Amino acid sequence: MKKENLQGVFSPVITPFNRDFTVDHKKLANQCEWLISQEVGLAIFGTNSEANSLSVDEKIFLLDKVIDYGIDPGKLMPGTGCCSMTDTINLTKHAVKVGCAGVLMLPPFYYKAVDDDGLFKYFSNIIESVNDERLRIYLYHIPPIAMVRISLKLIEALLKKFPNTIAGIKDSSGDWNNTQQMLDEKWDDFGIFAGSESFLLKTMQQGGAGCISATANVNPRNIYNVYKNWQKSNASYMQEEIDRVRSIVQKYPLIPALKSIVSHFHEDRGWNILRPPLKELHPNESKKLIAELEAINFKIDHSSLDISL
Amino acid sequence: MKKENLQGVFSPVITPFNRDFTVDHKKLANQCEWLISQEVGLAIFGTNSEANSLSVDEKIFLLDKVIDYGIDPGKLMPGTGCCSMTDTINLTKHAVKVGCAGVLMLPPFYYKAVDDDGLFKYFSNIIESVNDERLRIYLYHIPPIAMVRISLKLIEALLKKFPNTIAGIKDSSGDWNNTQQMLDEKWDDFGIFAGSESFLLKTMQQGGAGCISATANVNPRNIYNVYKNWQKSNASYMQEEIDRVRSIVQKYPLIPALKSIVSHFHEDRGWNILRPPLKELHPNESKKLIAELEAINFKIDHSSLDISL
Repeated sequence: MKKENLQGVFSPVITPFNRDFTVDHKKLANQCEWLISQEVGLAIFGTNSEANSLSVDEKIFLLDKVIDYGIDPGKLMPGTGCCSMTDTINLTKHAVKVGCAGVLMLPPFYYKAVDDDGLFKYFSNIIESVNDERLRIYLYHIPPIAMVRISLKLIEALLKKFPNTIAGIKDSSGDWNNTQQMLDEKWDDFGIFAGSESFLLKTMQQGGAGCISATANVNPRNIYNVYKNWQKSNASYMQEEIDRVRSIVQKYPLIPALKSIVSHFHEDRGWNILRPPLKELHPNESKKLIAELEAINFKIDHSSLDISL
Repeated sequence: MKKENLQGVFSPVITPFNRDFTVDHKKLANQCEWLISQEVGLAIFGTNSEANSLSVDEKIFLLDKVIDYGIDPGKLMPGTGCCSMTDTINLTKHAVKVGCAGVLMLPPFYYKAVDDDGLFKYFSNIIESVNDERLRIYLYHIPPIAMVRISLKLIEALLKKFPNTIAGIKDSSGDWNNTQQMLDEKWDDFGIFAGSESFLLKTMQQGGAGCISATANVNPRNIYNVYKNWQKSNASYMQEEIDRVRSIVQKYPLIPALKSIVSHFHEDRGWNILRPPLKELHPNESKKLIAELEAINFKIDHSSLDISL
């Protein structure tokens, strides 16, 4: 059975805060609208959205808000995986209810010595509790941060039990061998997203679904173009171009760097606020980052940014 | 100014679940009552309580419930540290409101590359938002699981800014050198709790406050006796006795092992339920564990267990 899986480039949308650390929901909706105008889907509540610095209630409120502002839920793939089963169930239920195209689900990440069997029970319980045939789960494999892994064996077991629900994976292991192994499996209707644009072309060449990348917050159109034109003769050149931007950004702490870039090019100082324990780049670092990007003629096309929602 | 800090032996109370993974709150209150009868304080919502498999709403509900059942909030030191600032503030506010003696606070543990300055901002924001002079925070240093560390420099900075609120620490690093360094600082009115009973005698000999130990769920009275009698001549012998029990228990996955022991000695099969991704011991493992404990004549005194609350 065809699941009509998602494909393309998604961005873990960075989250704008007010001075008191509440979320500036209007600005978030604007950023979502702009990303859609750049052909990029919305993996809101990702790692780079500082999602784990938000409560479930805040996430539910924001999901409703961005949809109220007019964002198409069909473009949304919110992160809904929390430490606790109950939180994950609540948030996932809500995401399905409001019509999100899919959810990106971290494994429970506090307890470290968990095995595949325990994780299988966890995900099974989530799926059975949400109990909605519209649910599409993209598993989120990010061992450098979550520490808890999603193994090939686990994916296989879940696909076998829930073929219509387990829709794909984001592989943020940073390990191409892992992505390659998954692509080699050629599981039916299972979308494999690279965890960043670095592996986008390779992923597309081997039948993957696209990428979900933090850098898509600042370089969406060019990343999308690699996705769209991967079969063209100039695809490797385009891949090199997006690699060049990423190689600069990833010299800095990623979330503060993204916010610093958006703040600079969108001319909005407020974008620099992060929720503790994260914090903004030092002004000197920020200047250096922007200078490096300007040296390669990097720009953000924000012609369509100031949409009044 | 004297903060009347807590001292003694605390147990991260294990959490009993029903078959549908909801919490059996009556059984939890019974376990709390029993631990108090064994002279042990209640660090509910600790790591070994599977607290990070519970939502904040569930924790608030349970806190109210155990107090309704008659548990003295003066015996309670709930874990209130979550990934998100907003969750930590909500839960901590509630704990203070209902009169808990203190709270045990994890650092935010999802984002890994955070520095002392970011953590200082995080804890400062929690304290200023809770904004209650009754708040007493025991920092929770458990790098093997939280991955995020609480450094001596961070403690010093927090003590300087919030001398009446920062009340102590639980050191679950498993590294005696770290505990030793903190004891050497001789900070005023700062209670240093060993993260397990293994270092209890050493901690007491150097001016520490006691221990907060998972094993206190099953061996409370004997651990308490080391705390109470650390100056007696037979203290090292008593320490060896509690070490012997621990050395058996910690050969197994800790939380399932504790539940297996309680289930066996309290003759209550239901205690074996864990929330996924954690899972109960295999019956063979469980039998082996109980046999090892019985071989050293280990018993749980549950004469005062079946209190009708």
